[in-house]
Amino acid sequence: MTVKIAHTAELQKFFEEAAGFTNDGGSSRLKTIVLRVLQDTARIIEDLEISEDEFWKAVDYLNRLGGRSEAGLLVAGLGLEHFLDLLQDAKDAQIGLTGGTPRTIEGPLYVAGAPLYEGECRMDDGSEEGVATVMFLEGQVFDSQGQPLAGATVDLWHANTKGTYSFFDQSQSEYNLRRRIITDAEGRYRARSIVPSGYGCDPQGPTQECLDLLGRHGQRPAHIHFFISAPGHRHLTTQINLSGDKYLWDDFAYATREGLVGEVEFLEDAAGRRAELKFDFQLQQAPDAAAQQRSQRPRALQEA
Amino acid sequence: MTVKIAHTAELQKFFEEAAGFTNDGGSSRLKTIVLRVLQDTARIIEDLEISEDEFWKAVDYLNRLGGRSEAGLLVAGLGLEHFLDLLQDAKDAQIGLTGGTPRTIEGPLYVAGAPLYEGECRMDDGSEEGVATVMFLEGQVFDSQGQPLAGATVDLWHANTKGTYSFFDQSQSEYNLRRRIITDAEGRYRARSIVPSGYGCDPQGPTQECLDLLGRHGQRPAHIHFFISAPGHRHLTTQINLSGDKYLWDDFAYATREGLVGEVEFLEDAAGRRAELKFDFQLQQAPDAAAQQRSQRPRALQEA
Repeated sequence: MTVKIAHTAELQKFFEEAAGFTNDGGSSRLKTIVLRVLQDTARIIEDLEISEDEFWKAVDYLNRLGGRSEAGLLVAGLGLEHFLDLLQDAKDAQIGLTGGTPRTIEGPLYVAGAPLYEGECRMDDGSEEGVATVMFLEGQVFDSQGQPLAGATVDLWHANTKGTYSFFDQSQSEYNLRRRIITDAEGRYRARSIVPSGYGCDPQGPTQECLDLLGRHGQRPAHIHFFISAPGHRHLTTQINLSGDKYLWDDFAYATREGLVGEVEFLEDAAGRRAELKFDFQLQQAPDAAAQQRSQRPRALQEA
Repeated sequence: MTVKIAHTAELQKFFEEAAGFTNDGGSSRLKTIVLRVLQDTARIIEDLEISEDEFWKAVDYLNRLGGRSEAGLLVAGLGLEHFLDLLQDAKDAQIGLTGGTPRTIEGPLYVAGAPLYEGECRMDDGSEEGVATVMFLEGQVFDSQGQPLAGATVDLWHANTKGTYSFFDQSQSEYNLRRRIITDAEGRYRARSIVPSGYGCDPQGPTQECLDLLGRHGQRPAHIHFFISAPGHRHLTTQINLSGDKYLWDDFAYATREGLVGEVEFLEDAAGRRAELKFDFQLQQAPDAAAQQRSQRPRALQEA
């Protein structure tokens, strides 16, 4: 028979002490969260009869996960980041805050401070010329009334043909494939870049190790990340996932959503092969000042 | 009103997919564990209305925790390692497996492969002579009938006068204050060492960061760790916590237990100041072969 003690008054008192409830210092919010985590962890250990070996394997896994800075990748792969989007959608629906381009996960690979341009720019450093397909990306940003939004910031980042990102892939130049574009008078942004390849988890990393044990792959379709923001409007974190990719609806990070598929068109003429992609965004009005900002998630900042 | 979606059929199905229940590969045990962790995590997020900023702070914390290899220290500090001991005690009591020296937590600072001696040895490398108080430690290992156990392995490790451990503190010599002693014909072990100081969490580390926010200190009383093992007997993981230490019953890792307080005696004569500590251990009979071994917890192994 399963032995359980976590529910007893003695153990509950112990967890309260460990969570700091018997002292007046610290953060009462964190105490509440830690107490709940301790209670739930103890119940998982009891209910699933977690062995000591399993417990210590998990502790070792956490060390290796953090040692590789993959916690953000794991929460995407286990669907928790997508769950946060679904929960925010439900919260929005409850207060009637609907419309506009759907949100989807940010992922762990944003780097703050990308070069800033007016209206248009080139995103790639040319290092993959001849290997990569040139991509012409453009679109408009609209407000909730469908009017073009001039002066909006389109902060976008994507992978190279190997599916890796500058900064995290140190072989790429600084801020390669990362740009901020301010929309023009018609709310338009234009970028010349290269067609990205899908991202795959490091096969040797702890995230893929977990996915392997769950019988899952760690691949994403080719995609382009966006932060879209404008004064008075709600910050939008989203992605375009490219049509035709075999992982489009089999994304290990569950980022592909209806309304976020970018129909990429491949053209060939005397100038060579190129891809064209048009994608428009619509922002909601900001219900309050805080909604204009992205989350305070700790992010990488490129050192100059 | 709090918005909740985690309980819906749609979300349960999503978590099952993320945990790999829709494929035949991988480990069914890990799938079960991951599904439960996802369900509980989603419920915590909903019940406590965890904000996105809080969620990402936690993810960043996990990266920093693992980056410093402190997951083992945190689970000790939050009482989860002690909880495992209490749960094992309750399991033992249920099947009438009682008696012998109490178990207590291992902690994260064991290193396998310490030098092996017959009967007695010196544990310190002499580097703290003049600073440290010499300690003479001895005792006997008994079986469940109270008979001396010859040939038992007493694998012990403790901190120096700064409260730090060799291997983890690279300024100490290899295996300083780490020894394995085989008991003599009378079941006796003897060690000459130095009186350890209590351990304290790194004030700059993520474990102490969490404890600070819980209004808690990160200090342990002076103590000596033991693995005691002998063929046919149940492996014992325990510690002696030294009498007179201000943290004896205020241990951040909750390792001090009744029956595990070592009464250390300080003596002064012409030869100088020294400490004497006698501590006997009693092992249980092993209920099965596996019980003779310590857990498979991943541990450090000193490179030769």
